[in-house]
Parts: sequence; structure tokens; C-alpha cells
Amino acid sequence: MSNSDNPGIKDWQAAAAKEGGGTVSSQSIDGLDVKSLYTAEDLASLSHMDSLPGLAPFVRGPRATMYTGRPWTIRQYAGFSTAQESNQFYKKNLAGGQKGLSVAFDLATHRGYDSDHPRVQGDVGKAGVAIDTVEDMKALFDGIPLDQMSVSMTMNGAVLPVLASFIVAAEEQGVSPEKLSGTIQNDILKEFIVRNTYIYPPEQSMRIVADIIEFTAKNMPKFNSVSISGYHFQEAGATPLQEMALTIADGLEYVRAALSKGLDVDDFAPRLSFFFGIGMNFFMEIAKLRAARFLWCEYMEKLFEPKDARSTMLRTHCQTSGVSLTEQDPFNNVIRTTIEAMAATLGGTQSLHTNSLDEAIALPTDFSARIARNTQLILQNETHMTATVDPLAGSYYLENLTASLIEEGRKIIDQIEDVGGMIEAIDQGLPKRWIEESATRRQAGVDRGNDVIVGVNKFETTEPSDVDILEINNKKVRDQQISSLDKIRKNRDQQKCDAALQHLTQCAKSEGDNLLEASIDAMRQRASIGEVTDAIAKAFNRHAVTATPVTGIYSAIRKTDAAFTEAEQSVDDLAKNGGAPRILISNIGQDGHDRGSHIVASILSDLNWQVVLGPSFQTPGEIAEQAISEDVEMIGVSTLVAGHKTLVPELINHLLERGREDILVVVGGVIPGRDHDFLLDAGVSKIFTPGSEGTQIALSLSDLISDRRHRLHNQ
Amino acid sequence: MSNSDNPGIKDWQAAAAKEGGGTVSSQSIDGLDVKSLYTAEDLASLSHMDSLPGLAPFVRGPRATMYTGRPWTIRQYAGFSTAQESNQFYKKNLAGGQKGLSVAFDLATHRGYDSDHPRVQGDVGKAGVAIDTVEDMKALFDGIPLDQMSVSMTMNGAVLPVLASFIVAAEEQGVSPEKLSGTIQNDILKEFIVRNTYIYPPEQSMRIVADIIEFTAKNMPKFNSVSISGYHFQEAGATPLQEMALTIADGLEYVRAALSKGLDVDDFAPRLSFFFGIGMNFFMEIAKLRAARFLWCEYMEKLFEPKDARSTMLRTHCQTSGVSLTEQDPFNNVIRTTIEAMAATLGGTQSLHTNSLDEAIALPTDFSARIARNTQLILQNETHMTATVDPLAGSYYLENLTASLIEEGRKIIDQIEDVGGMIEAIDQGLPKRWIEESATRRQAGVDRGNDVIVGVNKFETTEPSDVDILEINNKKVRDQQISSLDKIRKNRDQQKCDAALQHLTQCAKSEGDNLLEASIDAMRQRASIGEVTDAIAKAFNRHAVTATPVTGIYSAIRKTDAAFTEAEQSVDDLAKNGGAPRILISNIGQDGHDRGSHIVASILSDLNWQVVLGPSFQTPGEIAEQAISEDVEMIGVSTLVAGHKTLVPELINHLLERGREDILVVVGGVIPGRDHDFLLDAGVSKIFTPGSEGTQIALSLSDLISDRRHRLHNQ
Repeated sequence: MSNSDNPGIKDWQAAAAKEGGGTVSSQSIDGLDVKSLYTAEDLASLSHMDSLPGLAPFVRGPRATMYTGRPWTIRQYAGFSTAQESNQFYKKNLAGGQKGLSVAFDLATHRGYDSDHPRVQGDVGKAGVAIDTVEDMKALFDGIPLDQMSVSMTMNGAVLPVLASFIVAAEEQGVSPEKLSGTIQNDILKEFIVRNTYIYPPEQSMRIVADIIEFTAKNMPKFNSVSISGYHFQEAGATPLQEMALTIADGLEYVRAALSKGLDVDDFAPRLSFFFGIGMNFFMEIAKLRAARFLWCEYMEKLFEPKDARSTMLRTHCQTSGVSLTEQDPFNNVIRTTIEAMAATLGGTQSLHTNSLDEAIALPTDFSARIARNTQLILQNETHMTATVDPLAGSYYLENLTASLIEEGRKIIDQIEDVGGMIEAIDQGLPKRWIEESATRRQAGVDRGNDVIVGVNKFETTEPSDVDILEINNKKVRDQQISSLDKIRKNRDQQKCDAALQHLTQCAKSEGDNLLEASIDAMRQRASIGEVTDAIAKAFNRHAVTATPVTGIYSAIRKTDAAFTEAEQSVDDLAKNGGAPRILISNIGQDGHDRGSHIVASILSDLNWQVVLGPSFQTPGEIAEQAISEDVEMIGVSTLVAGHKTLVPELINHLLERGREDILVVVGGVIPGRDHDFLLDAGVSKIFTPGSEGTQIALSLSDLISDRRHRLHNQ
Repeated sequence: MSNSDNPGIKDWQAAAAKEGGGTVSSQSIDGLDVKSLYTAEDLASLSHMDSLPGLAPFVRGPRATMYTGRPWTIRQYAGFSTAQESNQFYKKNLAGGQKGLSVAFDLATHRGYDSDHPRVQGDVGKAGVAIDTVEDMKALFDGIPLDQMSVSMTMNGAVLPVLASFIVAAEEQGVSPEKLSGTIQNDILKEFIVRNTYIYPPEQSMRIVADIIEFTAKNMPKFNSVSISGYHFQEAGATPLQEMALTIADGLEYVRAALSKGLDVDDFAPRLSFFFGIGMNFFMEIAKLRAARFLWCEYMEKLFEPKDARSTMLRTHCQTSGVSLTEQDPFNNVIRTTIEAMAATLGGTQSLHTNSLDEAIALPTDFSARIARNTQLILQNETHMTATVDPLAGSYYLENLTASLIEEGRKIIDQIEDVGGMIEAIDQGLPKRWIEESATRRQAGVDRGNDVIVGVNKFETTEPSDVDILEINNKKVRDQQISSLDKIRKNRDQQKCDAALQHLTQCAKSEGDNLLEASIDAMRQRASIGEVTDAIAKAFNRHAVTATPVTGIYSAIRKTDAAFTEAEQSVDDLAKNGGAPRILISNIGQDGHDRGSHIVASILSDLNWQVVLGPSFQTPGEIAEQAISEDVEMIGVSTLVAGHKTLVPELINHLLERGREDILVVVGGVIPGRDHDFLLDAGVSKIFTPGSEGTQIALSLSDLISDRRHRLHNQ
């Protein structure tokens, strides 16, 4: 396999051949070739090897002393229910050894709806904390001094009112903006590619990003203005290579947007930060962080010629992979998260979130949050892994992986640059398609058993997993939020508030004014998140897109598998007796995660189903309407964020009211076992949880359609 | 810190200095210096770097293809209760993905006592499976074909009858010895140093080892005749460096013993295998396995000039560290075991046992055994870590650590060789002292808070841990064993059995005959483990030693700590009013693990207590007698293997019967929370679980003594 003339290598080749069982060839892992042996000879041609920590191109880390001076920051992403309850949870975690805060907002907030909006009935306080006004933000940080605590906020769609309310809450705590440290995600590009939690169209959204960069560059020198996020790419199915390259390409686009505001690159580039996911491909993930630092430095120097080295320095937060975790046998997730946390820190992350073992089921409890946090505390305190900087530097294998990622990463970034940058690439649908192809390929590998997931497609246990999980009473949260919103609206100076909102609309219509500044004024007047969002929407409009599933990937890998042909046959049989089965697949509520629904859509399409993909963010009523007008036989609802107990029964009611209870409803996604009977009693025909095999899903859907047709025929 | 002239390094030094918070000096970790930065320059002087996998000196692994051909063997150590119950457990684990078996025997079997012996009332079936005869061994492997399953047996003291009964059980399954694959631990030297599960004196014990090597060399070509074990050194407190060096020195002694039987080195050395513990010092543990392979090869070549390269090749089993796990917040142990498993496999182990999360509390349940096994299955199946051989090779840091371990390891091995080899070193008490010094130093570091153990001395949780644990009804197991022993004794040909046992005694008295051969004959005649042990003891006698605690280590580190001086003061106060407090510290039953009791003895000695260390293996009655005759005020009982509910009340009864209920009894060791009330009700004054801080133990013992003196004074 190695073409070396080194006599030692020849001896090794002979020994390897003699062992027979062994392979001496290379294999492709996530798109990169990996050889079975690397030696010093493999380092000869690598160009990044003389990098030193703290010095450009930063392969060995952005700081010279890295963790020997101070370990990475333990920053756990959390938020649920009301601001008051999340505040209690934060304080407990800080007492337990966590170092920074990271706020998860509910989907209503993400999408810029107040808690009293009819679209968000199932979402309030569910997947994050409900924030409607400055008063909520103040409650969220009650007793947490914002001049001392670094706060990260995952917010993109409603980034203006949320960041504004944070700034006003701090102001009313007596902390001025220049003292605030932390990060606002403010990364709208990846929302258009995968996560879908946008509000306005791309161009207008990019103006918002630029306005925030401009404001923070001038007023908040310790605050990271964008967290350029690859995490969601990986969650959606991107390989580490794709994740890395797309994230850097996003970053370059933000730099251009900020430059268009007349800023100097060194005014803002040092405060751009990154956010990567860390999955189970251990060495690849380590190499990814190292290669990403190299490439960011390379492209920043080449394209923008900054004078300040910090403008070329990639600093990153990481989160262990949610999609690598399993609902089945959830304590296995402690193992997975530990492995991923090691990769993140060996790769040199600046801060880290470790997922809780119940991540694939529900929000963390005190117990699961503690074990997740302890994963990092144990790494920092018990392993001596922080004793030296970048301990894997020099590894023949890792350095080669790093070099491969640099080389292949350049190709992807250049391809995006060549079409004219990321906004154009998004318009052409390139990044979304690449990611969905990888996701579908991965699903096919798992469904075939080529890719093993312990406890899911091999080594399954029949023992029930008894993990206590956290349940949010979202009706109660919503009622509380509505009553406090009413009070705030009654007590505010309505005239001043209206004036501030009108000013905001004007700012959005003109080009010169800074939208964050105007949003801060509105939040000071106790405008709500929803009102600010609507005021801007008067100028920008709300954006909506419809997706189409990728095709041909799944069938290319599985077409000769018996399970696939059996599923195909079942569709043929149906096609001969009433036509190809027809399904509407739709995410319900404000959840933008569509990996699962798109993969199922792709598999069913490859099996010759007629698949309609619903637009994101539909209400139960809208889904029912669409199902009837598209004349489907079945609705496949995808739900990941715990709104299912409210929204799914509502969907079935809408069908009933329209006399179309014959349309079947199946549900897929994160559904805790204890909710299954509730949904089945409500009229759901079948529930698919994560880890379900593709052709098995397809077969049981065929059976349901077949039964339905028989039933209708016999009526 | 680096003395390089490289301008890059100077830039790095400047950057590091500017970061202020960072340190640029080196620190000592487990006795080795670690710098904060390593670069390619640090590789220049290393001599082991051109090693290739599968080729001497094997730094990069004993096989050329390593895990790319076949991953390491998942071999979980297990055994409890009866042979029938353990057999069921094994079958379940094999179905769940385990690949090899590893048998844990109960302490009665280890010490060569049948289950009906009065000395072992508390031990039968507790910390391992109870085996009395060939019939038990047959039941243990019922339905497990011994020509296909590799079986490891942890047995040292009673190694002759146990290995003999395994061979006879296989024979009666129709499997001849040459088809058997697996490992017998058969490592008596480490028993004399730390674990104490010996039966006969050192010289006679070494003859047994040599006889087994001789027999297996001639008859069992696929069987590892010795598993040269460092694991127990690490458990007893050795640093990785000490563990590595002492293990290799043990191995050299076994080679000499085998050569003394007239064997050629190449006849047996390829079937010597190793067994290391893997603790939390991540990179050190990886480097340890690599350095150990280098050193074994070096010393074997130098001392014994083998012709077969396999005689110089170190193959090893590893087990994650038991002593690194905590009773507190036991799910943290999943994290620790994952980290350790990664170190073991990145170091290139051939097989691995991963501890269960309840290891520090009790025997594994089905649940905890599954999660432990899944740790390895996930590493093998989900991480791509097996895709390339020795993936860390070339790492500047790791290769330097490897070189340091080689260099420092040589010093220790040479020191032992210089005094005349390991038996002489043991006679001089060297290795035991070195290890106990390290253990006491570590305890002092933990007690000071310099060394953090998450959930124990920092980041404690007050939430109760609710782990279901396995409880063995050892009375029931013992009754079953006794009744089946009675039946076997009734049904055997007593005359033939007696003749075989007499022959065995004769063999032991003469030098020429092979003791394993004679033991096999006796086992065929249904002699019991105890009878075979006794027949040999007629020639060899049983061996016993008394230890003295190391002194001055703990006080040297802690003498200026307020907690230490307070504890010292409490002893001073007692000394002025009735003399220095007097305690007998004793392990109870057949448990030889004495790290905990010796550390406590050492701390109390340093605090000026009068400490008597009891000999190992005392019965409750013997401990009571010794306490009375030594005139102590308190007995400190150490128990780790779950016999406490039987043995401790018995000890208290013995004191009562002798009218000495005034002697206080305290208990330390592995005591599940649910047993505490039982022991306190039985008259125990205080219970100390793992993680108790040294000076706090001392202080509360002082209080107990003080109360006792007041009480006696006022009577």
C-alpha cells in the first residue's frame, strides 16, 4: 500500500500479508482516504507542519499556552420553560462547575412570535426558554452579573430583538454594552441551508447580520458578533469535511457583508467566532478543527489582507453531536459524548457543550445535565490531558488527515467562491443538496448494517431504558407568558413604544440606519419580540421556501438488497391497485430541523411513492388543508422538539372537522415511549422513533395504505 | 522552556509569555517531566522512532495489521455465585457481543479452600464464582465449546488444581489440551508484592509457575502459560512507570524459572502474555504500553538471546482501572472507563476488560455489564479508530513520553536486576515499599485537593445515586456447594483419589515430577481444590507475612495543612489523657487487597497513633484474639469484597463472648449504602467508604476513642 523504498516498510508489508486477516489497503472514511499505516515518510510533503500554537496559521491552536494556562470553557447550552425556571437551572449548573452560559430559546422566540401568537401554541417553552420582552430577559439573568458572566445566545431569526433585549437587560442591571462578553450566533446562512429558523429573505437577513457586526464592532469589543456555525450542517448529515468547508465559506460571506458597511476588516474579524459539531469519527474531528484554523487563516489573508493577526485566527465553540446519540439504551450516550468531548478538546476547542444522555429523548434533567458537565470536569481534572499544548501534533496519521482536510476543504470553498459566494451557492441549492446526499448515503449505510450503531442496528437490548425525563407543561408556560405580556403592554407608554416600532420599520426601509440600535430603542420601550419582528417584516416580509427531496442516492446503494426490493414490490402492488401511494411529509410547528423528514421523503421517492414535501412552519390546520388539496392518503408528521402532544391531536381534529378522517396520520421523530399510547389513542396510525430502518418504515407505510384502501373499498 | 535556537520557538515563547495566565514551564506527572510544548525538534534524539508494527522492537504493536485486520478482543472478567449462575451470565454476555471469557473465582478458591472450610464462610461465591471440583468447572462451561472459546482464568494461589480441573473439564467435553486457547494468570510474584493471594512460600510458588510453563509448552501450544500482571500494582497505587517496570522485571524472573526446568527460551517465551491496568493518566497509559513492548524486547534479546522474534514480543490484556472509579455519583464511571478504554486501545492492547460503573460498589448487573461491554463495541464500531495502525505514532509528545518511560523504566528494572532479580527484591521489600509510597503520596494529593476526583473531593453532588446492585446470598451458595461436594466425595473412588493425592505430595517433595500433571490426575479422580492444595501443602506449607506501614510520606506532604495539624492535635490530647490511641487494622476474610488498610495505617502512624497491622487472611475470631492480646482500643476492619455482612457481625460477637465489647469496631472499604444501617445496628461505630479524606478519618477515630475513654472512665 505504501510505495516506499524503505526496507522496513517492505518488511512490514510482508508481515502484514502473512497475517492474512489483515488488510493493507486504504479505505474511504467520510470522503477521505485512510491508509492502514502511516510513517514519518508520510509527513515529508505536508506544508502545514511548522505551525506553532498561538501563531498563524494556528494549526496547533489559537493561543500559545492553550489549556496549560486555562482549560477550555465548559459552556452548556440550556433553556426551557420560563425565564425564572431556566434561571434556577443556570445557577445550579454554575455552582456545579460550569463556567459560561449558553441560552436555548424556544421556537416561538426563534421565529419572532410572541407566546400569545396562535401559530406557536405547541412550541412555547418547549425546546428552549420563552422570551417575549426585556422583563423576561432580566428574569433570565437575575442574580447573574452580566459584566462577569460570558453569555452565548443561539439566536438567528429574531436576532435583533433578542440581542437588543439582552443589551437593555444588562443596561438595567447597570452594565454597559462594552462590558458584555459572550456570543450571539447571528448566523443566518446556515439557516437557509439546513436549520430553517430564518424569518426574512436572504438579502435582508444579511443586512441584519452586518448591522449587528457594525454595532458590536463599535460598542461591544468583548462580544463575538457572529458564531459561524457548522454544527447544524453535521446534524443535518454533512461529513466533517463538508461541515468545515461550508462553515468557512459562510464566514467569508459575513466578512464581505461587514466590509460593505464600510468597516475595516480588523475592526470586526477578531470578534467572529466559530461553532462546530463533533461527531464519532474521532481522528477526523480532531483534524477538522486543526484544518479549519489553517484554512480560515489562509483565506482571510488571501482575500482581505488584514493587518491584525487575530483577524485570521479561528476561535471556536464545539458541541458534541446530537445526531450520534440514540434513544435506545441511552446510557450508551455517555460513552459517545465522552469520545466526542475528547476529540473536541484534542482538536483545541475554546469552549464545549457536552450533550446529555437523554438528548435523543427530551430536555436534560438535573441528573443528566450533571453527568454531561462531569464529562468535561473529569477530562480537565483527572486525565492530565491539559498538561501540554496540542498533544497529538506530529502524529503521522493525524497530520495527514489534517492535510487531506485542508486540501479537500479548499476544493469545496473554491467551488463556492467560484459561483460567486455562499448566497449564490444557496440560491443554486448546492450546499443543501450536498448535505442531503451525505445524509441519505449515511442512512443507507446504517440501514444496510454497513455502518453499525450499537444498540440500534446491532447489539440491541430488549431491556427497557428507565431514564427519568423532564416534561414541560407548555400550556402552563404559555398562560404565564400571556398574562405577563398583557401586564407589560398595559403598563408601557404605548405612544413611545409605537413610535419606536415605526422608527424601526423606517430604518428597515432605508439603508443607512443600524437596525440593532433601533431595536434597542424599541426594547427599552417594552416592545415585544413579536412586535419588533413584525415592525421589520413590514419592510422585509416573511420568507418561505418549499424543498424537494434528493433522489437516487438511497436506491443506488440499496437496490440489490432484499429488504429494498421487498419494499419496492409493495409499492408496485399498490400501484397496480389504485395507483402509487401518496403521502404528504411535513414538519409540524416552528421546528426547522428537516433531516429526518427529508431522508424519509428521499427513501419513499426512490421506492416510487408519490411524495409531497410540505413547507416548513405549517400549523396543524395548514397541514390538513394541504393534505386534502393535494389528495394524499397519508400524512407523515415529523416532530423533534416535544410539541407533538399538542399539535398532532390538533391535526387529527382538523381532518375530522373536514370529514377526512380517512387520511392516515403517522408520526416520526423524537417521541418518548411514554407518549406513544397517548398519540395512538388520539388516532395516530404508527410512530417511528430515531433508528428506524428505512425500508421497514416504507413497508409498514405500504401496509397501512393497503389496509386503508381495503377499508374504503369495503365501505 | 525549550532551549531551541529555532526563531519560531522564540516567537512562541514570546506569545506564551504575553498570555500571562499560561505557564511555559514543565511539570512532573507521575514521576515524569512533561513540557508545555513539544515540537519536531524533540524527536531528534529519540532512538525508538523507526519501529514498525509487527516487527521488533514492537513499539507500534505486536502485529503488523493490528486492529485494521481484527479489532482487540472484548474480554470481560466475570464470575459470581455458583458455576451454573456464572455460566448463564457468560452466555448472555457472549450473545451481547463479548468475544472471550475471563473467569473470576471467589476468594475461597483463590486461597485453595473448599467451600465447606470454616475459614471461608463469608467468601464463598462473593467476589467470584465458587469452584470446588471438576464438576463445577464443567458446569461453568456448559454449552461453551472449549475448542472454540478462548478462556482466561485469573488464578495464582490455587493455580494447580484450577488449571488441572479446566483441563479435565475440557477433556470430558472431548477437547484435548493442545486445542485449548486462553490464559492462566499464574503470576505469583505480584501476589507477594501487592495482592497477597498466595498460598505457599515464594520459592515453592515459583516451582509451580515453572511446572505450569513446562507443561503448557509441551502440551498446550495455544495457551498463555503466565499473564504477567501489572494491573494489581496500579490498583495498589503504583505509578504507570512503576507498574510497567515491575511487571517486566517479574517477567524476566519467570523466564529464568522456566529456563531452570531445562526448556529452551523459544519453547515458552512466545506464550508468556502480559496484563496491564489502564488508569486516568491518558497519554501516559498509551505511552506505557508502547514503552513496555520496547523494553520487553530489549531485555529478552539482551538476557536470553532468543532465535524466535515472538519470544521478544509483548502481547497484553488490559483492564481499565478499578481504583480510579468512585462509589459517589457512579455514572461518572462510564466517562472514566471510556477514557481508559481509549488509552488501552490507542496503546495497542490485544484484549480489554472495561469495568462496570458499579465496580466500586458491587458486582456488575446485566445493565452495568452491558454498558461496560458497549464501551468497547462503540469504540470498535462507531469511531473509525481501528482504521489505521497505531494512529498516534509520531506525536511529538507521545513519542517523548514513550522515550521517558523507556529510560526511567530501565533504571527500575536494572535496580531489581542488580539486587539479584525480583525474588530477592521482594525479600528486601523494595517493590512493595515503592508502591506504598506512591499510593500514600497520591492519597495525600487527593486529601489536600491538589489532585481532583470529580464528585469525591470536588464537584460533589448531594443527589443519592440509585443504581440497582447485585447481591449474592453467599449462605445459599455455600450450602449448595457443600451439598454437591458431599455428593462428589460419596460417589468417587476414594482409594484412587487418595492415591492420586499422595502421589501429588510425593511430587511436591521431589523435584523432578511435574506438579500440574499430578494435579490433573488428582482432579480426574474428583479430588477437590482444597484437597489438592492441602496435599501440596504437606510438602510446601502455607505462607504468611506481616506488613509494616510506610511512614513519613503523608506527613511530609501535609504537615503544614490545618486539617493535618488538627488531627495531630487530637492525638496529642488523647496522648496526654490515657496515652496514644491504639488501633488494630486488619483485612477480614480471604481478601488480600491491602492498599486501603495500609494507607490508613500509614496516615495514622504519621499522626502518632499506635498502629498494629494484622496479618492477612484472619478469621473474625483471630482478629478478636489479636485485638485483645495487643490491648488495642479499636479495630479497623478493611473489607472490599462484600463479605462484610457475614464477617463483621461475627467479629463483634467474638468480642462480646470474650467480654470485650468495649473494643470499638470501625469498618472501611466497599460498603454499599444500603448495608450501612445493618452494620451500625450490629455494633459498628463508624463506616468509611472510598473517597473518605485521611485527616477526617483520623479525626473521627480520635473522637470515637475519646468518647470510649470517657465512657469507661464514668462506668
